[in-house]
This record gives sequence, structure tokens and C-alpha cells, in this order.
Amino acid sequence: MIQIPQGFRLAAANADFRGKRLDRNDLSLAFSDVPATAAGVFTTNLFRAAPVLVSEEHIKDSEGRGVRGVLFNSGQANACTGEEGRENCLRSLAMVSEALRAAGEKVSPSDLLPASTGVIGAQMPMDKWAAAAPALAASLGSVDIEGLARAMMTTDAFPKMSGRELSLAGGVVRLAGVAKGAGMICPNMATMLSLVMCDASVDPAAWRAMFRRAADATFNRVSVDGDTSTNDSLYGLANGASGVVVAQDELPLLEAALVEVLSELAYMLVKDGEGATKVMHIHVIGAASDADAEKVTRTVGHSQLVKTAMFGRDPNWGRIVAAAGRAGVNFDPMALRVTLCGVELFRNGRPTDLDFDALLKEPLKNVDLPLDIELGTGPGEARLLASDLSHGYVSLNSDYRS
Amino acid sequence: MIQIPQGFRLAAANADFRGKRLDRNDLSLAFSDVPATAAGVFTTNLFRAAPVLVSEEHIKDSEGRGVRGVLFNSGQANACTGEEGRENCLRSLAMVSEALRAAGEKVSPSDLLPASTGVIGAQMPMDKWAAAAPALAASLGSVDIEGLARAMMTTDAFPKMSGRELSLAGGVVRLAGVAKGAGMICPNMATMLSLVMCDASVDPAAWRAMFRRAADATFNRVSVDGDTSTNDSLYGLANGASGVVVAQDELPLLEAALVEVLSELAYMLVKDGEGATKVMHIHVIGAASDADAEKVTRTVGHSQLVKTAMFGRDPNWGRIVAAAGRAGVNFDPMALRVTLCGVELFRNGRPTDLDFDALLKEPLKNVDLPLDIELGTGPGEARLLASDLSHGYVSLNSDYRS
Repeated sequence: MIQIPQGFRLAAANADFRGKRLDRNDLSLAFSDVPATAAGVFTTNLFRAAPVLVSEEHIKDSEGRGVRGVLFNSGQANACTGEEGRENCLRSLAMVSEALRAAGEKVSPSDLLPASTGVIGAQMPMDKWAAAAPALAASLGSVDIEGLARAMMTTDAFPKMSGRELSLAGGVVRLAGVAKGAGMICPNMATMLSLVMCDASVDPAAWRAMFRRAADATFNRVSVDGDTSTNDSLYGLANGASGVVVAQDELPLLEAALVEVLSELAYMLVKDGEGATKVMHIHVIGAASDADAEKVTRTVGHSQLVKTAMFGRDPNWGRIVAAAGRAGVNFDPMALRVTLCGVELFRNGRPTDLDFDALLKEPLKNVDLPLDIELGTGPGEARLLASDLSHGYVSLNSDYRS
Repeated sequence: MIQIPQGFRLAAANADFRGKRLDRNDLSLAFSDVPATAAGVFTTNLFRAAPVLVSEEHIKDSEGRGVRGVLFNSGQANACTGEEGRENCLRSLAMVSEALRAAGEKVSPSDLLPASTGVIGAQMPMDKWAAAAPALAASLGSVDIEGLARAMMTTDAFPKMSGRELSLAGGVVRLAGVAKGAGMICPNMATMLSLVMCDASVDPAAWRAMFRRAADATFNRVSVDGDTSTNDSLYGLANGASGVVVAQDELPLLEAALVEVLSELAYMLVKDGEGATKVMHIHVIGAASDADAEKVTRTVGHSQLVKTAMFGRDPNWGRIVAAAGRAGVNFDPMALRVTLCGVELFRNGRPTDLDFDALLKEPLKNVDLPLDIELGTGPGEARLLASDLSHGYVSLNSDYRS
């Protein structure tokens, strides 16, 4: 069981945002007893939801002051909702902070960061926010990490959590992360939301920089369907409640632990991708540059032909080779080597003489499929986790007028 | 019925390249009575099949001399087959030219351009080539355009043909085109092969330049799954047998007719894409540049979320808007307009107030779905035809170990 870092309390409530009277929470709060240093990494989509824009502003305004919490709701994404959506977002923060003040917490709306996932284009039902805010505040401290992770879920099959404890010179610090993945609701949008809480005291600039790097090494190295949502957000709060100050030379240790937490969450996102039955662990080496290697991982990992082959447990070297060959990077086709689940499929411009069917029949039944691609050109390297493409994916994403 | 341009004779035979003793031809030849000016546009994949490499060489060597024909086979792609594959390719040309010489035609192997589609990585069965070459030569002149188009097919559902007649100052000239599309065979590879025959006399440099431009405006503006094969090839032969010389100022007329022929073939490729039930006609205007507009067409047209929505007849503006927003081009989200089948879905940063379900229920049952996207930024414009993503696609491409 993952421990909540010191000085954080969690809350959750059922606001019935979906209007289906489901017996599950869809509103949650990660709250810090003291102002925390905040980091945020947000979607690169030109269309950015109201909570993304407001979170960015609040993080910027918080410099030197701190952030008290992240407020999650599932059911409405509050994206493509215009000025009214922005006002509703600010109102939702005001309602929750008022309820928290009524419960004795000194907090203002600008101390909170909003994060939304769900239907886009629809305005949030503010009466439901008003009704649920007191229940949310009342639950503060009674919710565990799994409860927080569950309240964020949309069509996720399982809650996504990861944690680490780290012994530093000043003592033990904790990291606890939650995420929700590529679940879709109508009108559908895959949104990734994630939060990592930490009870160390960390230099704000260092904290933000390590989040950008860690996100690039983890969440930006996974792919379910190549689409990016209007709401993708990763938050980091470091509140210092452990009393441990991270020294300059300990920052790499903290960053390594952060990368581990985010890596575990990122893996879970792919494994729980819509209709996913496989996780391809694509590793490209020998490219002219890391950027070239990344292009190859993405072209292979996004190839519908490769993805359907993995779903069909088909050691189809031809599709992998052809995807590498059209990635737009230069390499010598004769130098290419492709190895799937440890079995070399392609070398010297031709398939190897191995009996792929016999050797790979059992390994291809596994969920995790290592796919190693050597370009033989230079030192460039990259990794990507990618899901397969199944009937389940098509069903989930086309089931509208059945 | 599409007429064969003057001075061309067609041949076809059943070489049983698939080894399944099917009652269908898999070997065919488009033969010109006189040397023809040849154009070729080939795959940009780094992995290029032996027939692609040999065709390029023969076209280059033919300058000032001409090409006599294009030799198609389906069943073996002769890709990723190394030096042996190249030798087999040259041997196949030698066998066919020898059979043609025995039938009285003065032709050498270097007068022919090879084009292959089918299994990759396997060597061609040269005994089957030897056995079938005389039958192919004997059939010369007895095959019509549809027979040629049928012999090229792999898993294509229908033969793809298109033709035009054009009145020029010197008389009437004919264009006749055939193509095969994104059919897959195991180990699977989508290959596009196409040939346009013309009986006009055209300046070689002008003929080649118009093919490059016409391919860019047509075949390079369609997408089934975004993958490019090792064998994609477009051939053009102009033999002058009509006696009509295309004047300098008539070249645009000929090019316009060529674009029409290739456009019709390209449309058929998408319509017959694997598992395709829809053809999205994506038209982006108002981009900063044509290149930006093209990026948006490709991001939307390749989006698995958009493609599954179209399969599900779901007017999912959110997926279209989000795909445009992640295309990597700059525009003002508030200026974006999205119109599907003539119904405006999105404007001013929000969905419109129209009743999409009622208005689009019937139109979304059509095969052809116009999707217009205005970015409101500049004069850039682009078009793309893209198929949807269906259960049929997943079945065709994952059905390996069922």
C-alpha cells in the first residue's frame, strides 16, 4: 500500500457529474496542510481546456507563495467551452475553497489547481459542484491514495498508483503518484491526468525542471493511439512537510525516484489503453541522433499495421522494417537489425533463417513484447511503450450509433 | 469501357505464384509496339524492392531509346530479397523478353520495367516464371484494360481503371490507367502499383515532370493507414502511336487529363482500402501555408480517433478539433471552423448549437463524407482522401493465428 506523503490529506465525493447516479466518486482533492512548491506540465495541443489555462496561471502566480492543492473532476473536461467555461472553472475553485474554509482550512481559490476530464464542449453543471463541495471538504483526510486514483478514473480498468521512499541526508522523504489514462467518454477524448505528491522541501526551479525532464522521459514516451488531448496535465506538489530539505547534490536522487514513479504510471497507461492487449517495449539504438531514434520509435509504435500484427501475435518483420524505412530518418537498410522478444527477425537486408513461428508462438502470447531495432548508423537511442490495435479499440471508439 | 490507347497490347497469364492453384491471372504485361517515353514515381521508403531499383535503372538507361513495356506480377513482392532477388528480377525480364522474341517481338530485357506485389522476403519461384512466360507472350493482344487491372489485384475487391480521351490540335489522344490498391497478403504489405498508358508523343522531360506533379496531387493525397510499402510504383508510358505530338502549349491539357485519371484511381484505392466503409474528403483551407494545411489533413486523416468515429457514424467534432490542434501548425483556436457533410460543427472555439445527431444521422450513412476545416490564418490549402478504421481493418491485419 502506497503511503500518503506527510502533510497531505485527500478528499473525494460523488457529484454525479455524469448524471447517471453511479455509485462512484468523480470529484477529488489532494490537499497540502502547508503551501507547496508546484510544477505543471500541460498538453501541447493548441486547444487547451479552461482548467489547463487556469492551472498555468495559478502556478505562475504561486511563485514564492505556494499551492495548496489539486482539484480533480471526471465527467466534464471543460474544454472548448469558451469564456463561460473559464468562469465556471473559477467558480468551482471558489465553491471548494469556501467549503474548505467552512471546515477550518485557510485557503483561497487561487491556492488550488483545477484538473478536469470527460465530455468536452459541454458546460459544467455548477449546481452539482455547489451540492458536492461540502461533502468533498468533509471527507478531507478520510481518503487513501487508491481512493484518489479511483475518483479520477473515466473508463480506466484499474486505478493507477505508484510510490517511492527515499533516504536522504536529512531523513526519509516520500513520493506518491496517481494517474488516469486513455479512457474515453462521449464526445470522446483521451485525457491523461497525473499528480505526484512529495513531502520534501525542493528548490522550486529544480522541482519544475525535473518535472519537465521526467515527463519527457516517461509520459512522452508512451503511445496508445498517437492522439493528444486538450486536457493532458501532470502536476507535482512538494510541501516540505517531512522537514527534509533536498540538498543540491541530492536532486539527481529525487529526480531518479520521480522518473521511476512516472515510468510505472506511464506503463500502466499503456497497459490500460483502450482495447490494449499488448505493450510493445520499442527500443531503437544506432540512429544518427536521439531525435532520429525517436522518430523511428514513433513511426513503428503508431503504425496501424505493426499494431494489428502484435494484436494478432504475428511476428511480421516486414511491417516493422517498412515502418522503420518510412520514418524519415536516414540509415543503411543493410545494417538494420530487428529483434522481437529476443528472436532476431531481420538482418543483412533480409529475414533471418530462424523459424519465427515456432520460436515466437509462446512469447507473443505475453502482454509485454520487447521490440529492439538497431539502425547501425550512430549513437542515437530512444524508447517508446506502445499499445496494440485491437477489435476492442475499434468497438470502444466507434460504438456510437449501434 | 475504357479503350486501350493506340499501339499498346496487353497480356496476362496465370503463373500460380501464390501456389494455391487459383483460377486467376497473376502475371501481366502492358506492351507498346514502339519504344515509349517512360516516367516512374517510386516509394520513398528506404527499403526499396528489387523491381523498383531495376525499373529506375531501366528508365534512366532508356533516355533517347524508349521503353517497351511494364511487367506486373502479384504473389511475390521481391522485397528484402538481397542480391538473389535482384538477379531473379533480371532473369524474369529475360524469360519474358525471350518468350516475346519467340513470338516475333523485337525486345530485350532492358526494354521492360518490372513491378511486383505480394509476399516480401521470399525469393520468386523462377520455375513458375519459366513456365508462364510463353503463355504470357501468347496472350499478347487478347487482354483488355479490365483484364490487366484484374491480373494486378491482390486482395483488392474490384479492378481499378480510369481513362480519358483528349482532342488536341493534332488529333485525339487516349489515356488509360490501371491501379491496384492497399491489399495485403502474408507477411503483409500494402502496395500501390499503377500504370498510365498514353498514345501521344510527349517531350520526355515534360512527361516525367507532369507525373511527379500529378502523383503528388493524387496518390500522395490519399491515406488508408499511413503506411508506405517497399514496392509502391507509378509508371507512365507515352508511345506516340496516335501520331499526335503534344505541343508545348497543350501540355497543361494533357496534365489535367492525367490528374483526372490518377484522381479517379486514387479515390478507388481509398474506397477499396482494407476494411474501409467510408471515404473522408478532408479539405483544409486558411492555413499559413499549403504545407501547414497538408499537415492538418494528415493529422486528422491518420487519427485513429477520427477514423473510428467516422466508422461509427459519430459527428465527433471534439476528435477532429483535437487532431487539428496537435498537428504542429499554428492557428488561432477561436478562428477554427469545422464542417462535416455540410453541417457546421465547430466555430468560435465551441461547438455550434445545431442538432448534429438529427442533421447528420442520414448523411453519415453515406460512403463519401466531406470534412471541411478552416483555420482562418492564411491562404494555405490542402486535400486528403482518407478511409475510416473498422473492425474489418483489424480483422484483415491481425488474422494470423486465429
